[in-house]
Amino acid sequence: MEDTTNATELPPSRRPGSARPGGRTARTREAVRRATLAELAEKGFDRLTVDGVAARSGVHRTTVYRRWGSPAALAADALDLARDEPWPVPDTGTADGDLRAITAEVVSGFTGAATAPVARALVAAAVRDPAAGRALHAFLTGRQRAAAAVVSRAVDRGELPPGTDPEEVVRMAVAPLYYRLFITGEGADAATAERAAAGALAAARAGAFTAAPG
Amino acid sequence: MEDTTNATELPPSRRPGSARPGGRTARTREAVRRATLAELAEKGFDRLTVDGVAARSGVHRTTVYRRWGSPAALAADALDLARDEPWPVPDTGTADGDLRAITAEVVSGFTGAATAPVARALVAAAVRDPAAGRALHAFLTGRQRAAAAVVSRAVDRGELPPGTDPEEVVRMAVAPLYYRLFITGEGADAATAERAAAGALAAARAGAFTAAPG
Repeated sequence: MEDTTNATELPPSRRPGSARPGGRTARTREAVRRATLAELAEKGFDRLTVDGVAARSGVHRTTVYRRWGSPAALAADALDLARDEPWPVPDTGTADGDLRAITAEVVSGFTGAATAPVARALVAAAVRDPAAGRALHAFLTGRQRAAAAVVSRAVDRGELPPGTDPEEVVRMAVAPLYYRLFITGEGADAATAERAAAGALAAARAGAFTAAPG
Repeated sequence: MEDTTNATELPPSRRPGSARPGGRTARTREAVRRATLAELAEKGFDRLTVDGVAARSGVHRTTVYRRWGSPAALAADALDLARDEPWPVPDTGTADGDLRAITAEVVSGFTGAATAPVARALVAAAVRDPAAGRALHAFLTGRQRAAAAVVSRAVDRGELPPGTDPEEVVRMAVAPLYYRLFITGEGADAATAERAAAGALAAARAGAFTAAPG
């Protein structure tokens, strides 16, 4: 496949004040990222290659090799870019509704036809490669921090005990889903997601996640 | 390295009534399993090879290739054999003590110097390979079923509501540890283990895992 751009000699041009820099470097990175995600969805991490991503992206392969160098680095960079994407935190008015929305999103992300192949491939990459693992870690802990707002709001509303550790509640809500999907292979569905949210909420209400249990 | 046994022509001899058959086939399988675990501990799953296991085990490499064929099959068989090992279910007298013992064992297994390398390598194998994944699934669901006895006993003692799903409580107790260790890379320690056990117990006490919430 022929290159459609020659991005080998790009200076690092970035628009100041733009959250997503719009220069040619950023466009190259975005093209490579899209190609990485498409290749991951089609082939999985085990069959991801730098050549395949370069061919699909239209970016010169020497550029892709120089900047990313390995399939794991491509997967890690796709995760890094995903961290910057806006993620609307659920705000249904109750901790129960918000936590159910969060766990439902985890299940649909890893089981829905449109998203599951690439989401699962990124987790597989993270388990295999330390750089991809760090990128997944940063991505998920960022999401956890954002999602923790639903717990903080519930504490402010008096739904949950003062001093509740917000991230610990989120972790307990989503952990059973990852455990079923990636560790035991038991699978997860909408009912599983609801039960996980209900379990975390019940524990939080009982004061299991306060520094001094209530 | 030279073979120390020639096990290529063994008939499948098994002692009836013995949980761990003691014939030459079983001895070969055990030698290969020990070698697999030692190689996994030293090198991890990515560098596990059939040749390396054959050399270490002293079993003829054509035998190892014929019966196991791939690193993933070796890892899967090691997990299959581990399912038959006795596992003493904690029985401290309280659900709290028992669940803490279970979560502490998960953390020590994956972080202790003697056990962590092979335990982590087996999970890595399971994420990468479907056969190893099925073997890990069978191993962990077997452990979950066994561990569920601590919850059933607590229900019988009146510590937990009637109708509590025993396996769901165990799953919720251990899931945050696997999530931290293998998905987010946040790590897990004794305090994490205690908090996970306390969270699952609080949710169970509140009736979050009964068919009709109490």
